[in-house]
Amino acid sequence: MIDFEALFKISYGLYIVSSGDKIKGNGFISNTFFQVTSEPVMFASCCSKNNYTAELILETGAFSASILPENTNPTIITNFGYKSGRDIDKLNGLNVIYGETGVPIVLDDCIAYLECKVVETIDVGTHYMFIGELVHAEMMDENLEPITYAYFRKVRKGSAPKNAPTYIDRSKLVKKQPASDFNKFKCLACGYIYDEQLGDPSNNISPGTKFEDLPDDWVCPVCGTEKEDFVKL
Amino acid sequence: MIDFEALFKISYGLYIVSSGDKIKGNGFISNTFFQVTSEPVMFASCCSKNNYTAELILETGAFSASILPENTNPTIITNFGYKSGRDIDKLNGLNVIYGETGVPIVLDDCIAYLECKVVETIDVGTHYMFIGELVHAEMMDENLEPITYAYFRKVRKGSAPKNAPTYIDRSKLVKKQPASDFNKFKCLACGYIYDEQLGDPSNNISPGTKFEDLPDDWVCPVCGTEKEDFVKL
Repeated sequence: MIDFEALFKISYGLYIVSSGDKIKGNGFISNTFFQVTSEPVMFASCCSKNNYTAELILETGAFSASILPENTNPTIITNFGYKSGRDIDKLNGLNVIYGETGVPIVLDDCIAYLECKVVETIDVGTHYMFIGELVHAEMMDENLEPITYAYFRKVRKGSAPKNAPTYIDRSKLVKKQPASDFNKFKCLACGYIYDEQLGDPSNNISPGTKFEDLPDDWVCPVCGTEKEDFVKL
Repeated sequence: MIDFEALFKISYGLYIVSSGDKIKGNGFISNTFFQVTSEPVMFASCCSKNNYTAELILETGAFSASILPENTNPTIITNFGYKSGRDIDKLNGLNVIYGETGVPIVLDDCIAYLECKVVETIDVGTHYMFIGELVHAEMMDENLEPITYAYFRKVRKGSAPKNAPTYIDRSKLVKKQPASDFNKFKCLACGYIYDEQLGDPSNNISPGTKFEDLPDDWVCPVCGTEKEDFVKL
């Protein structure tokens, strides 16, 4: 038996993991970036094989991670978390520098950044785990508190995108469904569909909750859009 | 250039990772336990090759992780974080169950627990990274907040033991040392030595801070013992 709610008690930070070079660079929002050894200092980063950034890490053999603060601008989350670098240039207009390895490093909303050189690439099925030796680390603003995934879910009302290692299929959280007449409502900003039958477990909205009964301050769990910008399907 | 202070901005939870069986079981405090894929749900755990638990995971091919709350009993931290299962039976007297794979699961101060079957063991130098498929997850008390490593350092005044992936050699944090006459003070409980020349960067105590000038509420960064239980060397 797997109670998927238990998985929400695992703690993670949020990072922009970037790779590429000055010609083509990209990054994505990651919650699985963590130190694996201290001598030498090595970090691991998990990246969906579908991610454009995975392609760039394979090509360049390096990546950077910018540590995001609690007050991260929502456009940074939307841009790096829910869009693809194959469709848009995510780095366009941002404050980006290029590290010792040549990879881009995003400095917007950045507490500190780290740059790693890949020493091993592990195939873990749907994702690659890149193990990288730390070559550079720099603090940008030590007074900022890092955002945690729990904070992102609770205060910022966010949820993991489909390519994240921690993505949870909402239907798996449903234990009992009342048999009745349910409707679906679509977020005009990001396309997320609120299904009354499933509710919104990431915001503790039980399965079977009618859209009209959602709290007034409920927002789209994917992009933070308010209730009034949803349409009934 | 590596600014080691930047590494303290990476977010982690704290877990008791356990393995073995009813005859010989053991666990250790880990901050590197995290989900790596969602289909199937797989987790990774980093474990020093010196750890007795690493030996047991290699033998049994399975491990459990108990998610610790903010109010974790200090004896749990000391027992699982700073002692070796080669010297004592860490599970003795605790509330322990045995999972589907036969490994022990510690239920004292447990928000939720997860049990994984190892599918791959990766040698990352000083540590093994065990990749395991989730076979069981259960919530024990969903109202408890998970302890984060930042909280452990800031509020609970803890620091990583030497075998942790995130262990930082304090001397690396020292940038400038005033030339003068410094003393050392030893914690009678755990043997940690406060060196005035180095200070205690994990508690924002600058290098050069005299022991007598430490704040009254300063405690041993390793085991939480108060100032009065230190002796001058």
